Amino acid sequence: MPDLLTPDAIAARLRSLEGWSVDDDGQLAKTYSFDTYLSGADFARRAAGIAETLNHHPDIRILWRKVSLAISTHSAGGITELDFEFATAVERSR
Amino acid sequence: MPDLLTPDAIAARLRSLEGWSVDDDGQLAKTYSFDTYLSGADFARRAAGIAETLNHHPDIRILWRKVSLAISTHSAGGITELDFEFATAVERSR
Repeated sequence: MPDLLTPDAIAARLRSLEGWSVDDDGQLAKTYSFDTYLSGADFARRAAGIAETLNHHPDIRILWRKVSLAISTHSAGGITELDFEFATAVERSR
Repeated sequence: MPDLLTPDAIAARLRSLEGWSVDDDGQLAKTYSFDTYLSGADFARRAAGIAETLNHHPDIRILWRKVSLAISTHSAGGITELDFEFATAVERSR
């Protein structure tokens, strides 16, 4: 099981991930905006593909020209390196 | 703008839509289950395509082997025929 990250470690990693933050539910989260609804839906599908590859699955919400991602490591009860791995892979895929 | 449906009209239409109900936020909603995570993600993308065709966009959540859809007509402040049109089209696409 991956270790929970300390608040300091989380803060340090967030500095290199534009737009990501820890949400009210304690998940690593970001809301992306899109010019069209379907480009958002396509992005959501790509994010799901990344999740499946990492075997680490976020909560994905497709809204009107917006897609929200939120992820944490349930088995560890919080945010771990695995969550940042997902976030980094999604950022790279854009 | 489509008219708001009466509670009776909503109840009557729900009888022909398996698994759909009115959720706590007053939206027409259903949660679908899938054998694999990616078949859920593919379904979500198809639902988004239907939404775009109808120009009527739900809240879509992709979770672990589950996809939730919730829709209402914001301009009317509740559930209208348009929401049932979306639900029916999604059911037909499965």
